[in-house]
Amino acid sequence: MDRIRRRIADIVAEFFASKAGPLARPLREATEGGKMFRPVLCAVGWHAVGGPPADDPALHLGASLELFHSFLLIHDDICDNADTRRGRPALHQALEAQYPGAGTGLAVVAGDLLACWHQELADRAPLAADQRLRTRGVLAGMRHEVVEGQYRELALTRQGPVEDLDEILAVARAKSGNYSVTWPLVLGATLATADPAAPAALHRFAVPLGEAFQLRDDLLGVFSEPEVSGKPVGDDLRDGKPTALLALAWRTADPDQRRVLRAHVGRQDATAAEIAECRAVLTALGVPDHVETMIDERYRLAVEALERSPVAGPARTTLHDLAAQLAYRDN
Amino acid sequence: MDRIRRRIADIVAEFFASKAGPLARPLREATEGGKMFRPVLCAVGWHAVGGPPADDPALHLGASLELFHSFLLIHDDICDNADTRRGRPALHQALEAQYPGAGTGLAVVAGDLLACWHQELADRAPLAADQRLRTRGVLAGMRHEVVEGQYRELALTRQGPVEDLDEILAVARAKSGNYSVTWPLVLGATLATADPAAPAALHRFAVPLGEAFQLRDDLLGVFSEPEVSGKPVGDDLRDGKPTALLALAWRTADPDQRRVLRAHVGRQDATAAEIAECRAVLTALGVPDHVETMIDERYRLAVEALERSPVAGPARTTLHDLAAQLAYRDN
Repeated sequence: MDRIRRRIADIVAEFFASKAGPLARPLREATEGGKMFRPVLCAVGWHAVGGPPADDPALHLGASLELFHSFLLIHDDICDNADTRRGRPALHQALEAQYPGAGTGLAVVAGDLLACWHQELADRAPLAADQRLRTRGVLAGMRHEVVEGQYRELALTRQGPVEDLDEILAVARAKSGNYSVTWPLVLGATLATADPAAPAALHRFAVPLGEAFQLRDDLLGVFSEPEVSGKPVGDDLRDGKPTALLALAWRTADPDQRRVLRAHVGRQDATAAEIAECRAVLTALGVPDHVETMIDERYRLAVEALERSPVAGPARTTLHDLAAQLAYRDN
Repeated sequence: MDRIRRRIADIVAEFFASKAGPLARPLREATEGGKMFRPVLCAVGWHAVGGPPADDPALHLGASLELFHSFLLIHDDICDNADTRRGRPALHQALEAQYPGAGTGLAVVAGDLLACWHQELADRAPLAADQRLRTRGVLAGMRHEVVEGQYRELALTRQGPVEDLDEILAVARAKSGNYSVTWPLVLGATLATADPAAPAALHRFAVPLGEAFQLRDDLLGVFSEPEVSGKPVGDDLRDGKPTALLALAWRTADPDQRRVLRAHVGRQDATAAEIAECRAVLTALGVPDHVETMIDERYRLAVEALERSPVAGPARTTLHDLAAQLAYRDN
């Protein structure tokens, strides 16, 4: 894994070294320091279905996902009006400090350039013509689903309390589970083999796992200790993000509990004490346990799909470990 | 030309008909009603270098440019805080009315999806493998140059009066002349033939012509009658857009004239009378005549390049007419 991560970082660094102009440095800095989660999963997908040991195509195409992800984060931070990203000022804030009044516009355009560079890096990946053709639809599907998911989440956030758990899970799949887990694995597998059964098997494994990953994210965003997760706890509540946690809570809360949630959820200036009140409501309603059960179910579905799949040997072990890691991580 | 325009409109309509989801309709509406200037030039480039009469590859790839352009306009309107586009509310304004407080974020993401769809339509174009390979770099170059140009213009606008005519012309080439004229022609030519001399010849023709096109745009934006140009006159001045006109004016204005320009340029609420004052300063300084001379020079360079090029017959006539039209149009 470390070898893979280093190789991907090298490809990204080499790409940025080929770029000049006013945006080369800020976009490189915005991209560096990511976990390279999706590129690594692309390589995992390649190896899982028996892709050859020389995994250059998977690493190059995977590296292009890191640029795409960094582009998404730049625009996400604009949409969420976030102040920081990876411990530094968010790009629109940094640009606002430099060009007062134009930070948002400049960051929109900077993100656009990074999206173009994602495509350029994908185009430069050393693929055979048939690999190119096969993976094109996967990339298009991924981009469409995640960007539309982001749109649906933003629109949903404006609607006030959302009780529709199915709609929330659908948006979470689009924005997070499928984007972060399913598409990268399927991309690597599609690249490695012309046999459509292989990516289809990974797809059956990845979709429930992606949901478990997202549900864990929701739990950690509200209930983890900040010193463990590294994230400011409660921001999902302050943002009024439509999560499964909140949908479950709205469905069963009594009038007093509703009053607490209404008073604090979606308020950027909610205090730590007010967030703790909301947490207490969720706990009293049994929401964390309910979500843990949902994660268990999805983890089990993923493992069953893996066991019915043709993936065998060390690749199966890798995916098994991955499933446990994503579903039961504590940060 | 009308046949070409109709075919391109059909390809765009067919693409949107294949799309569902909350953004399919607003993005179709944002794309319809454009002049299809760049797709048509792509087809012109194809025919100019002897591309076969069956011009499907050029029309499909050209149609993808219309989606890219519409994406750029959505983000441009956010950057410029524009209210309307093509006689309708700008997308971020329409979305703001529907989702108060989230219009900008939603329009950023909607634009992103259209950029993804541009790539998808380009990928679907019926190209041979060698055509795909040749045009990929052209598309990447175009996207990089125009998006970076947009960034440089936004940053420049924040600097106050810009006297550096070379920098202004470089940004205008990137944002407008090359983007609107050079790249589409070169794209069509590169698609039509493996001989690199053909697009190179069109490049020599298009670069000065693109500059003439942009300079004419600057003139029309300040001096045309709105009933002729269809554009609100003076908006370039109200936006404080760094144009060649202003650079020339700043270079030679006396203190009184500087005072007038400083008082009104870059003020969104400048009245028609104040805009007229600025226009009077530019005229007194001989700026419109100077810019007309610059247009003449560039038109001449373009025509000379055309005459030295291997383009002959009806294609040469078409390009000749195009040059006169772009350099000397009145709207």
